[in-house]
Amino acid sequence: MAEENAIDNAKEKFSEISVAEFFSKNKELAGFSNPTRALYQTVRELVENALDATDSHGILPEVKIYIKEVEPENEERPARYEVSVEDNGIGVPKTVMAQAFGKVLFSSKYVIRQTRGMYGLGVKAVVLYSQTTTGRPITVVSSQEDSNFVYYQNIKIDIKKNEPMVVEDGQLDKRSSWHGTIASAIVEGDWTRAKPKIIEYVRRTAIIAPYAELWLVTPEGEIYFFPRATKKMPKPPREAKPHPHGVDLEQVRSMLMSTQAETLLDFLKEEFQGIGDKTATEFLRHVGLKPDINPKTLLKKEKLKDLEALVTALRNYRGFKGPRSDYLSPIGEELIELGLTRMFKPEWVKAVTRPARAYQGHPFIVEVGIAYGGAIQPQEEPILLRFANKIPLLYEEKEDVSYKVLTNIDWGRYGVQEPYQLAVLVHVASTKVPYKGVGKESISEIPELESEIRNGIHEVARSLRIYISRKAREELAKEKIVSIAKYIPEVARSLAILSSPPEDPNRYRELEPKVMELLISKVAASIEMPKIDGRQEDPRLIVERVIKGVSIQEVS
Amino acid sequence: MAEENAIDNAKEKFSEISVAEFFSKNKELAGFSNPTRALYQTVRELVENALDATDSHGILPEVKIYIKEVEPENEERPARYEVSVEDNGIGVPKTVMAQAFGKVLFSSKYVIRQTRGMYGLGVKAVVLYSQTTTGRPITVVSSQEDSNFVYYQNIKIDIKKNEPMVVEDGQLDKRSSWHGTIASAIVEGDWTRAKPKIIEYVRRTAIIAPYAELWLVTPEGEIYFFPRATKKMPKPPREAKPHPHGVDLEQVRSMLMSTQAETLLDFLKEEFQGIGDKTATEFLRHVGLKPDINPKTLLKKEKLKDLEALVTALRNYRGFKGPRSDYLSPIGEELIELGLTRMFKPEWVKAVTRPARAYQGHPFIVEVGIAYGGAIQPQEEPILLRFANKIPLLYEEKEDVSYKVLTNIDWGRYGVQEPYQLAVLVHVASTKVPYKGVGKESISEIPELESEIRNGIHEVARSLRIYISRKAREELAKEKIVSIAKYIPEVARSLAILSSPPEDPNRYRELEPKVMELLISKVAASIEMPKIDGRQEDPRLIVERVIKGVSIQEVS
Repeated sequence: MAEENAIDNAKEKFSEISVAEFFSKNKELAGFSNPTRALYQTVRELVENALDATDSHGILPEVKIYIKEVEPENEERPARYEVSVEDNGIGVPKTVMAQAFGKVLFSSKYVIRQTRGMYGLGVKAVVLYSQTTTGRPITVVSSQEDSNFVYYQNIKIDIKKNEPMVVEDGQLDKRSSWHGTIASAIVEGDWTRAKPKIIEYVRRTAIIAPYAELWLVTPEGEIYFFPRATKKMPKPPREAKPHPHGVDLEQVRSMLMSTQAETLLDFLKEEFQGIGDKTATEFLRHVGLKPDINPKTLLKKEKLKDLEALVTALRNYRGFKGPRSDYLSPIGEELIELGLTRMFKPEWVKAVTRPARAYQGHPFIVEVGIAYGGAIQPQEEPILLRFANKIPLLYEEKEDVSYKVLTNIDWGRYGVQEPYQLAVLVHVASTKVPYKGVGKESISEIPELESEIRNGIHEVARSLRIYISRKAREELAKEKIVSIAKYIPEVARSLAILSSPPEDPNRYRELEPKVMELLISKVAASIEMPKIDGRQEDPRLIVERVIKGVSIQEVS
Repeated sequence: MAEENAIDNAKEKFSEISVAEFFSKNKELAGFSNPTRALYQTVRELVENALDATDSHGILPEVKIYIKEVEPENEERPARYEVSVEDNGIGVPKTVMAQAFGKVLFSSKYVIRQTRGMYGLGVKAVVLYSQTTTGRPITVVSSQEDSNFVYYQNIKIDIKKNEPMVVEDGQLDKRSSWHGTIASAIVEGDWTRAKPKIIEYVRRTAIIAPYAELWLVTPEGEIYFFPRATKKMPKPPREAKPHPHGVDLEQVRSMLMSTQAETLLDFLKEEFQGIGDKTATEFLRHVGLKPDINPKTLLKKEKLKDLEALVTALRNYRGFKGPRSDYLSPIGEELIELGLTRMFKPEWVKAVTRPARAYQGHPFIVEVGIAYGGAIQPQEEPILLRFANKIPLLYEEKEDVSYKVLTNIDWGRYGVQEPYQLAVLVHVASTKVPYKGVGKESISEIPELESEIRNGIHEVARSLRIYISRKAREELAKEKIVSIAKYIPEVARSLAILSSPPEDPNRYRELEPKVMELLISKVAASIEMPKIDGRQEDPRLIVERVIKGVSIQEVS
């Protein structure tokens, strides 16, 4: 019987959907799971595009975010908001504008470079969300620096075809030197719930990019302004060639197809990063392939074994230099310390930029900053601030590799007491951040990354331990000085009186300052103050401060 | 200066990648993040396809999984395994075979139906992983029941174009009545680490589908055989029309384009589920649209406001019936209890299939089973078994909505003591399971779902509390019976002796059984045993058991 049913039902309807339809049906994959998250994600994606268009190209960012309620919520649906983000970036060329905003998987992010955008999806996910919830296109206004025009387009996505539909477009003469992009989308959202997250997002962006000027204008008309704290910027990331450890068979095949190199040796030298003549020659000897063959012969079917051997060796050969980290753009210790100081006004702050490492051929740099004491509110757990390629990550903290590492740190070992007045910042910069999902909220537990984050936290925490223990020693020394110094005036006077000749009892007045000076020097010299971050208190000043506070009776 | 740099750098390279290239570059998104996970994911995807081809079509599944090491690991790379999965399902038609295995986003899953596959990605992700790590195609052998041939194809994906490449194909005459599919992929993997997860995966599949026969043959040649425990199968899921609460503007637009309906009223009745003539008429009155207009007029630009109003009302109108749950295929209480019993041999087991609910227009059913005591190993936390559309979910437990709910249950309230001898099974069946990622490992915290899971656990736990408290009462009653009953023989004899006439002292032998019987009845009647799951112990039997164990001295 069951078998008979099977025949009746054995008609599966196969069909193809476009990638636009895929992400439109599964909006939660890109972070648009409900009106709160969707509004937050809309702001994020537009802001991250804005920043990628500025600091990644050496421009000091000025980013303005306007969120306006355009229709209030009603019984039937959430409110609608217009989210506009303006930047002073390089602008979008007119020729690619429609596709860059209206075609999923068309992007400037498909190169090997450290960018905030990673998947080439974000802004298109905004457009998909906007048009499926409110039916409205995204409006893009943009001008490049060398252009005489400002272009604008209203763009939707033909979801079935994954093609842009330009609903309206035009151009204006440019009178000013303005360049940049303004992107505006109208989306369903829940501002009340999203508000704290959005403000926190902007605030953390200001921490990680203190060289940016950020404005957030809320639907209530509140203005959150984060002024530029420095003009110093990290050097922009640069595009890199693939590292041999990071390629796979298909990628090498496609590199072979497009290469101009005429020998296998040249192919290696020209198409990969960090392979020079010597390394390439040694490597090919190791693989057992002739350096002067035409690389394209490896594409032949009968050469599959050779190609496989080449790729396996490329992925694993230990003689290559590590992935180029000089193409990455870490924030730098100074800017991290500045950002943390500005945010927390701590008693102590320190950051470290770790040396570059690699996982699966992708270079990465971990940076860790710790702020301690001062105005930090005491908490049950240390505050964790996560960043990846200069993006703050706010959701799904407990799933993040940094959270895992942080919860396993024994802060007692570093002299930090509960409740914690401690904020730990972790920044991961990479040409490929291993996010858990396309919504870019948490980072996977890649062993190389995990260990670098642990090392980074330990490194800064060791400085913190030294600071805390020296501070404790300083406290102790101070107490000692105070407890001795407070007797100095009395002792000095007594000694002076004792040493005065009986015929001239007032002589003590002359002797007293000398004895006092002697005692001060002795006491000050006997106690060594610890050096804390290069600063060392002068014990003499402490002694003098104490003495100043002691009054002794005049000798009658 | 910075501005000048900007000009130099202001050349963004925009490019388009295919969806195959996207998932090839970002394999971790589909669960292929390292050799262990990748091997596990390969098995999963093939098994889930196999099961979808059987029980979803009323066929009792026989699924055989063979994992063979084809090349050992060496210094440079992980070992390679051939993973073959054979099913007795409906087979793949020759006409779509290449695309179904060799084109991302071509699938039979893009209908509204409860299936294990959800995104139409899984098996293609296997092919992408296989060909980028080992360069090998997937081999598919398949025959449909009504076909006279067995077809086979070796399929790869042209990643740049997202098109299938058939490397080899052919057909054989079919001599037997076999139908089904065998899919084999050769992938890099780490069997040693993946082994426990893969075995657990198959074991849990056997729990949730006790009507399936499952074989796993490991690289070591071990055979794990899970025989069919029942021939009873849940009714297969059926394809549904969209529920109005689940559509969006774009979807309605595309439904309007393809509809055959000539009036708006008919459009609603024909294209949506659960809208009859009366509901449609009332609904259109509510929206203020005429029922007899041609629905396609709403596609006109000037009718956008009307279309928007229609969609908003569709999404929110309260007069519609809930999404059809009779199209879903829950497992059923009986099969869940059977599966849990088979796996845990518990002292107590119970399952509940909750009434259907909906989120965002998608119907879902939560099922909860609890096994308690018996052979369950005591643990610090209850064991959680997560399932979605009959798939076991093993990774990323802590991110799952069920974990969140479970950790907030106060088991003390239900009389369950630590350490826990407790296993909680949660199954979510839906036409759209809200996974957090395309790797299908954890379910999002959708409020409607969270509350149903909580209700389900509470419901079963309340029965458990009753069981535990009745068992405690039973224990108490038993103790009471025992403590009284053990005196019955002595008392009965004494009474019998006392009641015997002095002239016939042996009369007591006659009286004794009568007195005994009287006492037994009295004691048994005085104590009420609690009813536990319909079973109630007979106190008389307990009394008799006790008495049997008591020996009293013969009267001398």
